[in-house]
Amino acid sequence: MTDQRRAARAPAATGQRPTGPPAAPPLQRAGADPAADVRPTREAQPTREVLAGYLHERAGELLRGLRAHDEAAGSAETAAEAAEAVRLLRRSARRICGTLQTFRPLLDTGWSDRVGAELRWLAEVLAKEHEYAARLDRLLTALHRLSAPAAGPDGESAGSVEARTGRPGVGAAKAGALLERQLTLARTRAHSAALRALGSGRFHAVADEIAVLASEAPLDEQSADRPAALTLRPLAELTHRRFAEAVDALPHGPEALAHTLTGTEGRHDAGWHHVRHLARQTRYALEVLEGPRPTAPGPGADTGSTTPLHAALVLVGRHLTRHRDAAEAAAAASAAGRTPRIAPATAYALGVLHADQRHEVEAARLAFCRTWPPAGDR
Amino acid sequence: MTDQRRAARAPAATGQRPTGPPAAPPLQRAGADPAADVRPTREAQPTREVLAGYLHERAGELLRGLRAHDEAAGSAETAAEAAEAVRLLRRSARRICGTLQTFRPLLDTGWSDRVGAELRWLAEVLAKEHEYAARLDRLLTALHRLSAPAAGPDGESAGSVEARTGRPGVGAAKAGALLERQLTLARTRAHSAALRALGSGRFHAVADEIAVLASEAPLDEQSADRPAALTLRPLAELTHRRFAEAVDALPHGPEALAHTLTGTEGRHDAGWHHVRHLARQTRYALEVLEGPRPTAPGPGADTGSTTPLHAALVLVGRHLTRHRDAAEAAAAASAAGRTPRIAPATAYALGVLHADQRHEVEAARLAFCRTWPPAGDR
Repeated sequence: MTDQRRAARAPAATGQRPTGPPAAPPLQRAGADPAADVRPTREAQPTREVLAGYLHERAGELLRGLRAHDEAAGSAETAAEAAEAVRLLRRSARRICGTLQTFRPLLDTGWSDRVGAELRWLAEVLAKEHEYAARLDRLLTALHRLSAPAAGPDGESAGSVEARTGRPGVGAAKAGALLERQLTLARTRAHSAALRALGSGRFHAVADEIAVLASEAPLDEQSADRPAALTLRPLAELTHRRFAEAVDALPHGPEALAHTLTGTEGRHDAGWHHVRHLARQTRYALEVLEGPRPTAPGPGADTGSTTPLHAALVLVGRHLTRHRDAAEAAAAASAAGRTPRIAPATAYALGVLHADQRHEVEAARLAFCRTWPPAGDR
Repeated sequence: MTDQRRAARAPAATGQRPTGPPAAPPLQRAGADPAADVRPTREAQPTREVLAGYLHERAGELLRGLRAHDEAAGSAETAAEAAEAVRLLRRSARRICGTLQTFRPLLDTGWSDRVGAELRWLAEVLAKEHEYAARLDRLLTALHRLSAPAAGPDGESAGSVEARTGRPGVGAAKAGALLERQLTLARTRAHSAALRALGSGRFHAVADEIAVLASEAPLDEQSADRPAALTLRPLAELTHRRFAEAVDALPHGPEALAHTLTGTEGRHDAGWHHVRHLARQTRYALEVLEGPRPTAPGPGADTGSTTPLHAALVLVGRHLTRHRDAAEAAAAASAAGRTPRIAPATAYALGVLHADQRHEVEAARLAFCRTWPPAGDR
């Protein structure tokens, strides 16, 4: 664990600092839940209604995304609509995937594993284009921040200093151009790959499965009529426990920026990515139990939380996504730095950028440790 | 102010974060000082005895350092003794300087300003060699940390990964060699400059003044017989207040690593260096009032604190020195990065190193804000 993480967790403690991230709070906290008066009703319903109902809704959403994409794709004028449709597709695919995984024992497991794997493939293929675009955006923003002249102690801009020293901006500009070239190429390829995937027989086979799912979920008949509280809740608790255990098992990372020059500085990232995955799984499981969130379009769609735990998972999810994005941006800067025959100033700027993004990785870990577990559960 | 600094200062506060560093504690805290039973006796003494006594001791120390240097200099076998003698010289010069400045109204001001300026020059000339050596050491240590392979999540070393990817270490090794060349050259020049200074007429003139000071300090006769509590203490309080005000005036810095590519990222460093200077001045003033510290050789010599405030100043002094060292090391890495015709991998490693040292600058600021004001005075 880094000093930063320790400090964030027990800033005023003297000597008695915890040695690992604290355990997650229990899934359900007595009396503290504003949705407590709603949930029992839902959990008293038969498993079939709750689980199949949720899967039907998500499947319908996925099919709507697919139709919207078919209508918008292929024209520059409707690129924004196509991108939004892809977002909806990914959103539903991730939720169905997570639901199939968490509640696997209540479903036809063969079917569930097969469809889950295909949806994971689909969500990954569809995510790439957006990821490259966001990565480029993140790196150019960072370069801008790194190469903006500082205001002086009296607020005066340092423009004149920069003008005098002349060259510092050159490396940043060249590094930006190089990254733009490399990531735009990657993005274009990802776009084509996504279009190919959506036109493939493999995709049509998944779409057929989803069309069936929209009206009929292959539930295990023995559990289908039991109340959700006895079937869904224990499995949601299990997912939540796996999340808590993954948080506990987070490696005690090295100092910020250590190993940055070896290509091994991201060795501990995987543990954090796993935590991110499980935080999402837990959040989706809660959505099944507590009713789906508003599906308004846009990045704010996930914020309609009805319970504090769901809200906390949304919040730490942002930190964990920022962690993932920064780690991948650092890797992209590092890869660009290995481009043959670049100017030393370009390489220098990419080195600073790489370190800056690893610093962001640390900051995201710190932010996670500051917000998890939520204040009431410490 | 950076997020880190804010967080360190009010980690659990919600919304009500202070907007600037807190004020320094009062110089004397009622009842909290273990030396309180000693100090009044000393402060009841006449100004002459306390102030002149302190100056005599420091002047004697400086002359001993000078003799020790004369005996040890010029031979490789006694280089360690010569370095230790220079350390003693600098230590005494800094303290005499600070004392002359803080208690200027009680001294012959013309003499005090002249000798103070000459001692400042001497301390600066003598410090350079050590500073370049320490800077190289800091940068090579950082490069080592940055280029050491990370242990895996299971503790397994990443040596094999590095062996497979091959090249990451090359840039770090070349960067290290370049820095070693540049800073060793600077260090050698500083060594010659220090020897030249110690053989100069200018130095002999200061040495003569110090020889006189060792037996007789030019005190203002009107104050010389008054008790130290009425003359020295108010001036020490004034220095302490200037320190507190400088802490309050610390610029609210940009985010960590912002502006790193412009050569203007150190624009706010000067305010911190000023705080470091005033923390030292305050500490030296306390030493005059409370009796000198043990002068045992070595870097631990300053730790024989008799009061909590002195101990706190020693502690934050370390953070502020680390701040200064990291800022100058970052500048050295940046300067090395502008060496013409270096390989891109070397430039890349220097960029990472530069960012790493700016990260250290931020960490030192955070550490300062965590330890100042001392816990009892918050």
